[in-house]
Amino acid sequence: MTKKLSGIAASNGVAIAKAYKLVDPDLSFDNKSITDVDAEKGRLNAAFRASIDDLTKIKAKAAENLGAEEAEVFEAHITILSDPEMISSMEQQIENDKVNAETALKSVTDMFIGMFEAMTDNTYMQERAADIRDVTKRVLSHLLGVTLPNPALIDEEVVIVSKDLTPSDTAQLDRKFVKGFVTDLGGRTSHSSIMARTLEIPAVVGSEVATSEIEEGTVVIVDGLHGDFIIDPTEDEIATYTKMGAEYADQKAEWAKLKDEKTLSADGVEFMTAANIGTPKDLDGVLENGAEGIGLYRTEFLYMDSAEMPTEDDQFAAYKAVLEGMNGKTVTVRTMDIGGDKDLPYMPLPKEENPFLGYRALRISLDRTEMFRTQLRALLRASAYGKLWIMFPMVATLPEFRAAKEIFEDEKSKLIAAGVEVADGIKLGIMIEIPAAAMLSDKFAKEVDFFSIGSNDLIQYTMAADRGNEKVSYLYQPYNPSILRLIKMTIDNAHKEGKFVAVCGEMGGDPIAVPLLMGLGLDEFSMSATSILQARSLMKKLTTTEVKELALKAIDLETNDEVKALVEATVAGK
Amino acid sequence: MTKKLSGIAASNGVAIAKAYKLVDPDLSFDNKSITDVDAEKGRLNAAFRASIDDLTKIKAKAAENLGAEEAEVFEAHITILSDPEMISSMEQQIENDKVNAETALKSVTDMFIGMFEAMTDNTYMQERAADIRDVTKRVLSHLLGVTLPNPALIDEEVVIVSKDLTPSDTAQLDRKFVKGFVTDLGGRTSHSSIMARTLEIPAVVGSEVATSEIEEGTVVIVDGLHGDFIIDPTEDEIATYTKMGAEYADQKAEWAKLKDEKTLSADGVEFMTAANIGTPKDLDGVLENGAEGIGLYRTEFLYMDSAEMPTEDDQFAAYKAVLEGMNGKTVTVRTMDIGGDKDLPYMPLPKEENPFLGYRALRISLDRTEMFRTQLRALLRASAYGKLWIMFPMVATLPEFRAAKEIFEDEKSKLIAAGVEVADGIKLGIMIEIPAAAMLSDKFAKEVDFFSIGSNDLIQYTMAADRGNEKVSYLYQPYNPSILRLIKMTIDNAHKEGKFVAVCGEMGGDPIAVPLLMGLGLDEFSMSATSILQARSLMKKLTTTEVKELALKAIDLETNDEVKALVEATVAGK
Repeated sequence: MTKKLSGIAASNGVAIAKAYKLVDPDLSFDNKSITDVDAEKGRLNAAFRASIDDLTKIKAKAAENLGAEEAEVFEAHITILSDPEMISSMEQQIENDKVNAETALKSVTDMFIGMFEAMTDNTYMQERAADIRDVTKRVLSHLLGVTLPNPALIDEEVVIVSKDLTPSDTAQLDRKFVKGFVTDLGGRTSHSSIMARTLEIPAVVGSEVATSEIEEGTVVIVDGLHGDFIIDPTEDEIATYTKMGAEYADQKAEWAKLKDEKTLSADGVEFMTAANIGTPKDLDGVLENGAEGIGLYRTEFLYMDSAEMPTEDDQFAAYKAVLEGMNGKTVTVRTMDIGGDKDLPYMPLPKEENPFLGYRALRISLDRTEMFRTQLRALLRASAYGKLWIMFPMVATLPEFRAAKEIFEDEKSKLIAAGVEVADGIKLGIMIEIPAAAMLSDKFAKEVDFFSIGSNDLIQYTMAADRGNEKVSYLYQPYNPSILRLIKMTIDNAHKEGKFVAVCGEMGGDPIAVPLLMGLGLDEFSMSATSILQARSLMKKLTTTEVKELALKAIDLETNDEVKALVEATVAGK
Repeated sequence: MTKKLSGIAASNGVAIAKAYKLVDPDLSFDNKSITDVDAEKGRLNAAFRASIDDLTKIKAKAAENLGAEEAEVFEAHITILSDPEMISSMEQQIENDKVNAETALKSVTDMFIGMFEAMTDNTYMQERAADIRDVTKRVLSHLLGVTLPNPALIDEEVVIVSKDLTPSDTAQLDRKFVKGFVTDLGGRTSHSSIMARTLEIPAVVGSEVATSEIEEGTVVIVDGLHGDFIIDPTEDEIATYTKMGAEYADQKAEWAKLKDEKTLSADGVEFMTAANIGTPKDLDGVLENGAEGIGLYRTEFLYMDSAEMPTEDDQFAAYKAVLEGMNGKTVTVRTMDIGGDKDLPYMPLPKEENPFLGYRALRISLDRTEMFRTQLRALLRASAYGKLWIMFPMVATLPEFRAAKEIFEDEKSKLIAAGVEVADGIKLGIMIEIPAAAMLSDKFAKEVDFFSIGSNDLIQYTMAADRGNEKVSYLYQPYNPSILRLIKMTIDNAHKEGKFVAVCGEMGGDPIAVPLLMGLGLDEFSMSATSILQARSLMKKLTTTEVKELALKAIDLETNDEVKALVEATVAGK
């Protein structure tokens, strides 16, 4: 029977396809005594062979669809399963202890995992432990006769249904066949949402019930425009949503015409629309969507995607690629923002009670200055290849900015003294994401070159509500007048000193926030590349007079909902 | 050799006495095989007897010094050790498995602890598990020939040296003999600091090294005025610090004369100085120190000190006792502030990544309204016995305040309809501790009766720095102009609507903050009772003209340190 359910609209568009559940089956088993040793060894060997068969297929498919690098991990898994030591230890245990194959498998692999994990300072061994965990799951699934999801083998159009999507899940997906996502967990700013928007795949997240309500293979409609999904839809519903999807596609085609245009209001005032990126790979999307610059280059991915601290040369190569790729347009690089919810395997951070209020971002950089100096040197060397701006994350006080700037100037002088080419006019700015910095933006504006408002964190701290915590997600209120007032204060103070202000959080591309930010006089809107043309199109329909009036009304309202309703009424039909 | 070290000044005054280390000795042991079963049983029995002897002495001492109730726990411990089942299980294990007494003790007690702890819904059994853990430590210490600290047996003047002090540690201390504290951990707002100020005992916390540097029995000087401590001082040092202590005592005597006076500035403007309390027991200190009211009654202690949810009648009795005890002076009660760093054993809360940004205080009350309604009914019934004001913690948005007020009005009407006497004119206010509430204080001021600024949380959220996290403790900056500006905004907005504003966090009694808050026009300063007379004395020396000028200068400075230096220069010698 057809069933319509709701979640959080995470990425626009409409998808209709069969459900593919990316959910681990139950792999629990009983430790049993056995009598027929040979039969049990036979079961074990068959499960190993079947697993190697799976992996060989997956590897070929992954090499074809995702590239040789992504396929390598499966080769590593095959190697583990082909190790005669491993299987013979298990056979011996079956023989000596008369246990079932599942028990022998678990006991031997646990031993290896334990040994490898104990080598905490050896990233390579840590990764091998993870590999053994993965292959154990696969062999166990064959022993238990249940099916593991094999996302790399998907070869028809599907809607992925899962609890959540991790970066490693998504690495295995062939974008050609994945038409939409529905997840149980997550919010608009979680990894799966950002991913979906980057890939331009319709997505609904945080549904709570997707994996329990949707059965494998059922047809599902994902309405990423409204946050709904329909299980086993009727013909009529399919027709309606197909039409809705087509209309959205038409709208996108309309937006695409703005690709090479400037961002102008209806009365001809110019704004900037820029893109947020994580790696040089994102440049394709940036250029396709006509970004006027990079408003936020999140350098932490360089650190997170690596098994060890990236060297100065690794970093230089990445920064240079982005600067060259942008061909003279501004690239605003944020220095490392690790900590909070982002860990590095090779740099253990203290376990904290409240990591979002803890040791993170610039706080780490100013404490572990060697790492920070390496990043700044890489940036300075890359600056010769384009137009570089640098900003520091999580600045709360002026002395923090001054300390960071001093280190920057020190590295700059040393490089220049050593004859290295460094660009003139690299601008130094700060993220405004801590309320204290917004409250002192008049003082900061005298010393920095620009501000970039990190709306996600600014909202989280101003409302004292963790944006990843579903119990308080109702307090993630971007339109709350308290937030708008902090943003207004920041923009006004910057402009008094002739400084530039961007927003690079979710608000930068949010159709409700964009008119408000225009009205507050924001200079640059930085967002997922895929939102740029829609934002540019919206801004073209609004005059600065009307949005200024709108913003002044909004900051004098009392609640998030009132502001939202006001904006919706004002821009309705535009 | 004499050695001078520093920590955080947590409670004023000077103490000189021998060190008493409240540090658990190493109780680790090897699991050994034994051959002489009888000898091993003998060791076990001797350790049991010695432990019962200890506990009998401690119990008598505790009954004498601390009261019968505090002594009961030791009776429970003796009962456990006297249980023939327990020791015979251990003897059997020694006999059967030929293990040493330590191993048998640990194995049997672990079994009991495991059983009791498994009954997670039974608080009584949970407490028994804790008792068994305690007695096991004691028996083990006798088996290993090491000495456990017995704080209840202290019968000479000492300085307590420990890693940290928990409420259960302090319950065992005889205040007559404890002259000072020095701890490794903690900050000015940690439990041990608040305790020390309540008991008026000089204390230095967060020294990092006290337990490693100070040996048992060495003479230690604790200088709680400056945050220093001196190990094994010279005669000269003892003389100097004795004089400093005497001067501080004279100053206190001077302050004591202000007990029955109003709080006036040098130019005769009246302010209010009030006390923060946690339980009705704190009333003695409040009255002794001449508080003009209770600015903050933290009701969560009612919930935390109880094994189950306190009933409406339990709560009514506590609120009534405080209202009657204050004899017509205002008592501002904060509704339950659980969550964050405060848990309830009988109300499991979700495990959160960032509890300070999570499900806590009013957020819980508005979600679990039965509990909230019970508290409000108890408060309404108690209101007939004094002058009650009620405030809600962790308000971020207007709809939250409106929802809380609506529940209050609903319970009030029902009680009145049922013929219960309820006071007229109970004022309803909110804590200003979330930046969003301060930013919208103009709107809140139209709807609430008063504000109380919770400076500890307001600083933590505004600076995005967990006040309990030592890695970012440098960001706990009460004098940062960003904080002062938020406070100014709150006070100005309240006064525009004719509403009253208090500060009830640490800033309320901080000698640097007091002149600033006076200058910003604060109405009430609420603090630890023991700080009231000092604050009243300081305020008497300052004119409103000079502090207004001081505050306006301060909010236009750039850093916490600059503000601190400015205040110090202005009030120097006052």
